[in-house]
Amino acid sequence: MQEYRAQEFFEKYSVRTDLALEAHEVVVEREGPLELPGVNVSRVEKEQAVISRVVVENEVGARMIGKAPGRYSTIESRALREHNREVHEDLARYLAEELDWFIQDTQLGPEDPILVVGLGNWNATPDALGPRVVQNIMVTRHLLGMTPPELRHGLRPIAAISPGVLGLTGIETGEIIMGVTDRIGAKAVICIDALASRSVERLCSTIQISDTGIHPGAGVGNRRLAINQETLGIPVIAIGVPTVVHATTIVADAMDLLAGQRPASHVQESPPQRTTFRVDPRSFMGPQAEPQPAGQPQMSGEEKHRLFQEVLAPYMGSMIVTPKEIDVLIEEVTDVVAGALNIVFHEGVDYDEVFQYLT
Amino acid sequence: MQEYRAQEFFEKYSVRTDLALEAHEVVVEREGPLELPGVNVSRVEKEQAVISRVVVENEVGARMIGKAPGRYSTIESRALREHNREVHEDLARYLAEELDWFIQDTQLGPEDPILVVGLGNWNATPDALGPRVVQNIMVTRHLLGMTPPELRHGLRPIAAISPGVLGLTGIETGEIIMGVTDRIGAKAVICIDALASRSVERLCSTIQISDTGIHPGAGVGNRRLAINQETLGIPVIAIGVPTVVHATTIVADAMDLLAGQRPASHVQESPPQRTTFRVDPRSFMGPQAEPQPAGQPQMSGEEKHRLFQEVLAPYMGSMIVTPKEIDVLIEEVTDVVAGALNIVFHEGVDYDEVFQYLT
Amino acid sequence: MQEYRAQEFFEKYSVRTDLALEAHEVVVEREGPLELPGVNVSRVEKEQAVISRVVVENEVGARMIGKAPGRYSTIESRALREHNREVHEDLARYLAEELDWFIQDTQLGPEDPILVVGLGNWNATPDALGPRVVQNIMVTRHLLGMTPPELRHGLRPIAAISPGVLGLTGIETGEIIMGVTDRIGAKAVICIDALASRSVERLCSTIQISDTGIHPGAGVGNRRLAINQETLGIPVIAIGVPTVVHATTIVADAMDLLAGQRPASHVQESPPQRTTFRVDPRSFMGPQAEPQPAGQPQMSGEEKHRLFQEVLAPYMGSMIVTPKEIDVLIEEVTDVVAGALNIVFHEGVDYDEVFQYLT
Amino acid sequence: MQEYRAQEFFEKYSVRTDLALEAHEVVVEREGPLELPGVNVSRVEKEQAVISRVVVENEVGARMIGKAPGRYSTIESRALREHNREVHEDLARYLAEELDWFIQDTQLGPEDPILVVGLGNWNATPDALGPRVVQNIMVTRHLLGMTPPELRHGLRPIAAISPGVLGLTGIETGEIIMGVTDRIGAKAVICIDALASRSVERLCSTIQISDTGIHPGAGVGNRRLAINQETLGIPVIAIGVPTVVHATTIVADAMDLLAGQRPASHVQESPPQRTTFRVDPRSFMGPQAEPQPAGQPQMSGEEKHRLFQEVLAPYMGSMIVTPKEIDVLIEEVTDVVAGALNIVFHEGVDYDEVFQYLT
Repeated sequence: MQEYRAQEFFEKYSVRTDLALEAHEVVVEREGPLELPGVNVSRVEKEQAVISRVVVENEVGARMIGKAPGRYSTIESRALREHNREVHEDLARYLAEELDWFIQDTQLGPEDPILVVGLGNWNATPDALGPRVVQNIMVTRHLLGMTPPELRHGLRPIAAISPGVLGLTGIETGEIIMGVTDRIGAKAVICIDALASRSVERLCSTIQISDTGIHPGAGVGNRRLAINQETLGIPVIAIGVPTVVHATTIVADAMDLLAGQRPASHVQESPPQRTTFRVDPRSFMGPQAEPQPAGQPQMSGEEKHRLFQEVLAPYMGSMIVTPKEIDVLIEEVTDVVAGALNIVFHEGVDYDEVFQYLT
Repeated sequence: MQEYRAQEFFEKYSVRTDLALEAHEVVVEREGPLELPGVNVSRVEKEQAVISRVVVENEVGARMIGKAPGRYSTIESRALREHNREVHEDLARYLAEELDWFIQDTQLGPEDPILVVGLGNWNATPDALGPRVVQNIMVTRHLLGMTPPELRHGLRPIAAISPGVLGLTGIETGEIIMGVTDRIGAKAVICIDALASRSVERLCSTIQISDTGIHPGAGVGNRRLAINQETLGIPVIAIGVPTVVHATTIVADAMDLLAGQRPASHVQESPPQRTTFRVDPRSFMGPQAEPQPAGQPQMSGEEKHRLFQEVLAPYMGSMIVTPKEIDVLIEEVTDVVAGALNIVFHEGVDYDEVFQYLT
Repeated sequence: MQEYRAQEFFEKYSVRTDLALEAHEVVVEREGPLELPGVNVSRVEKEQAVISRVVVENEVGARMIGKAPGRYSTIESRALREHNREVHEDLARYLAEELDWFIQDTQLGPEDPILVVGLGNWNATPDALGPRVVQNIMVTRHLLGMTPPELRHGLRPIAAISPGVLGLTGIETGEIIMGVTDRIGAKAVICIDALASRSVERLCSTIQISDTGIHPGAGVGNRRLAINQETLGIPVIAIGVPTVVHATTIVADAMDLLAGQRPASHVQESPPQRTTFRVDPRSFMGPQAEPQPAGQPQMSGEEKHRLFQEVLAPYMGSMIVTPKEIDVLIEEVTDVVAGALNIVFHEGVDYDEVFQYLT
Repeated sequence: MQEYRAQEFFEKYSVRTDLALEAHEVVVEREGPLELPGVNVSRVEKEQAVISRVVVENEVGARMIGKAPGRYSTIESRALREHNREVHEDLARYLAEELDWFIQDTQLGPEDPILVVGLGNWNATPDALGPRVVQNIMVTRHLLGMTPPELRHGLRPIAAISPGVLGLTGIETGEIIMGVTDRIGAKAVICIDALASRSVERLCSTIQISDTGIHPGAGVGNRRLAINQETLGIPVIAIGVPTVVHATTIVADAMDLLAGQRPASHVQESPPQRTTFRVDPRSFMGPQAEPQPAGQPQMSGEEKHRLFQEVLAPYMGSMIVTPKEIDVLIEEVTDVVAGALNIVFHEGVDYDEVFQYLT
């Protein structure tokens, strides 16, 4: 069902994106700055970052932007690509605040255990974000047994795993997570994942948090089993950072650029100012949809996609596009994401007292 | 119970060892070349290796050598430390044969799924053996869904995980394994682990296979939950390779050496030829035990151990002893162990046919 | 001068390639299967590989294919991408034979020292080929001092360095190599480098050996100083393996493919069979050149390149395209190249005798 | 000559240490808190660290403590082992101040180029400190050519290399450094090296800076060529951090501990308070030396050392002792040392202006 919505959106706009903000921008850019029904967008500008929250309120909104109903928060900052510890500390704090918004919503108790999951392959640099974050967060679950009861008050048990990828384990990542959450009684899961983006500009400069989970086929690796509240039975918060663009995507963008159009993936620095639009977004909205205006000269999204797949896939199918300096960029982003998690999990508890019981 | 036996042996001989062969040698060396009741030892010399099988048949044998009843197979080869691909292929074949002896015994069906578990910390070189082996074996479980039924015949599904260590995950390794075996319906587990040895000579030159599982506190990392047939409900085969010696152990050995004794951990090249012995091994064997001969000048094992712990632990507690070139040695051993597993799992099945269904 | 020739070729065919074989194929494909003056090509098919030798005999040949006069040998094998130890041993042997052809030509004495240089950045996977090869070859230079004179006979001293990249060292790679060759009196240099290729199909499936050195701007990293016989004063043999394609290249290819043309970078499995040709290659060959046929509908190479640079560079300038599984592929290629060097350097000398003097 | 002095000291006290402070403490502890002629010691206590400066003023001082004449500065801090970014920033600042003391003394001009050299083997964790520091410092030498002359004012060109180790390169590290300093015209060298320490307590908790260079056989790897002002012709500042203890050292310490003595390597928290001493340090000081008091029950240093070498070397020769968590500790120390170098090199210059010229 959900997949169908995404497919519909994709065929309409020929945009396959893991980012709700990107999807929303595509619609707004093509259709004009109208209010999209069922989609609620707010935006805050900070000194070094723009933070946007997209709430897809219902099925109508989901069809509009091809994203499941739920919350999406996006932090965009060029400074994420730069080596500046102070700015990165600010970004970690922003991310911590956004995470907090999600955690509040889950109605977790302050002592409910959380499992952090680093998705991806630690041997493939652009896919290693999740495992590296896991390596840098402070886990506490195993300390509880050593901590006197009077000190346990307010301590949240944090556990963390890097389950690896299907090709190396022979096991769907979702299966491992289910097995572990069952066994340890986790009350929520936070997944960190490297995403495939539409846009080279977003690589290592955007962080998305959402509560709609990880979907089959998303991300850099291939997954076939959804990791979400439906499959796990507990809230799933996903933190995703684009680290690669697929080769076929970059070709599509390049062709748009060469044809004088802005690529579908272009990052909007400011909201578009156009007052006319070619397609009425209400056309998606149900049986009363009007036909698409005729005479559109360019290929439709679906035609273009089909052509690309047929012609380019044999040559470029498994190729990924990544910045030359991806090794350094992944390190920087890891610091920010792990820093944010440590702030969210461990601020306000006096861990000195706790850690003294650790041998 | 089991722990008590090991403790008893340790106090008797002041030898804490993960290797059954080493424990057996200690008793034989100190007590003389008598037949130990309940312990069955056989030994085969190959061109580049000595392969010993120790079967602890019952509780009497278990008390004799401080090891749980079960099978233990040990491959000793100096050539494991050398970079010689041909010899390493021979060693992989020997290891595959020994593994086969264990797998035969489990009465697994040819299509029963096996979970391979790489224990240890991939960031700490001497503890990274398990995760590195996992990275180098061929997993097949995920291919079954893509394979036509007529080709599945005789295919054994192999899955593999590296669960990490308690300090990084907050979860007992045993819990993760239980969660995953339950979920995927594994019928046996094969664990690979780096061991702490008694002897620098054994480092990266000995491989032990056993069916008695992994015990709390064994190995390089610290585990508190046993990983064995009792806890998992399915057969557990453990492959262990000594990669470190604890600092306090090396001190004890050095003192024995300086006092002109052979260290407890000395590797026996040939069986000892002494015909007298000071302690009758029957003294362990029950209420009829005779008192220990008086006038023994050296400290008892327990006294020595207590002294060491008190005096040395604050200085050397968390120190490990490892060869300078441990990075290279771990790589070599990884090749041999992963090679052996690939032979055992995948020889005799035409995987070309299988792999063509893999996208 | 040399750069001018490459530029001229590039503008003619809009092909910027590090591979002489690729340059030759482009001319032959576009111009027809004529004999190119000053360019001598031979080709041998082996079971798992095609080995081509291109000799650019003089300036005329150099202008024809945009490559400096000298020898180029190329081994093409899809099997390089597969994990098959036996085939890789065959490929290492082929590479060793080709290397031997180059070394014979340098007229090095059998005891003349050679410096192996692993170019590239060990932290960036696609650029790490050189440093990884260096790590896997057997160096011998430091053993000479320990070896009795009567055993030194016929021993070639091998030294090896990984000089790093300009951005990490602040020093041109060429400067470091000059400093070291001077100091140790090397008589030849063998460089290993990751190349940027025209074609995704060549990635990790082609090895080029040449005696024309490394040119500024070639390879994955950026170098500004040539590393060749002219700058170092001793023979330089370069081993290059394509590991990335630039993002703008893949776009150009994609556009050719979508337009129904074969991309300039397409790998020829068999020689083209066309008997007509559109452009007479003699048109390059001097003042008597005839004008290009009119009415060619597509953009010229230069126009296309200029358009791409202007429009795409801001978006895709520093992006590289690489296979998802690049980590594994680099490992495989490393084994083949290091294996070949060990065969060439160390076959026929009884190193057992030598190494026993090493403590 | 210098080696003889160290040997003499070693035989007297059976202490082989790379740390001048340790050598001084041994003499003071054994001989009493007398003023050592030719040795000037000062000590400052900071909140998280103790900083000691030892100046060996002449040959007399050199014989007293077995260290070459020159300056030695030592920063001792347990906090170096803990993960606390704020404290580490303080430690980096202290280290920067001490480095500044050495750099002032070299009378380098503000624009004189410095070569930073990361000694050691990047594949062996305890020996990888140097290469990791090099990876984390900002190099600037290559930017000069791109910087307009009016901005170059006050810019110090920094270059950096990791020359590898003899066993992997076949070239003495000193040769590579000579070759590169000659070529690039460096005016000073700063070496970073992992040291072998006497004491497990010093591992990753002590940083020594000295201007006497790196000596053959010092450090974790083996070097045969000195790297100092004498061999290079320019000032050499060495930054050393103990990361391993040799197995034979730990045995000697353990025996002292078990015998109720404080080990020779014990870290002094406060100066010893004893008022009597057994050996008059004047006994070293020349022909007027008095004989050693008779009746000393314990083995002399030399006897002990000889015994150890004979008996233990075959078992423990190449074994090193290192903390279990060495991987994490090396990372922490790298941050502090690289941070200090970046402060010393780049504070006070507006690098924003410089880096904008970098493409």
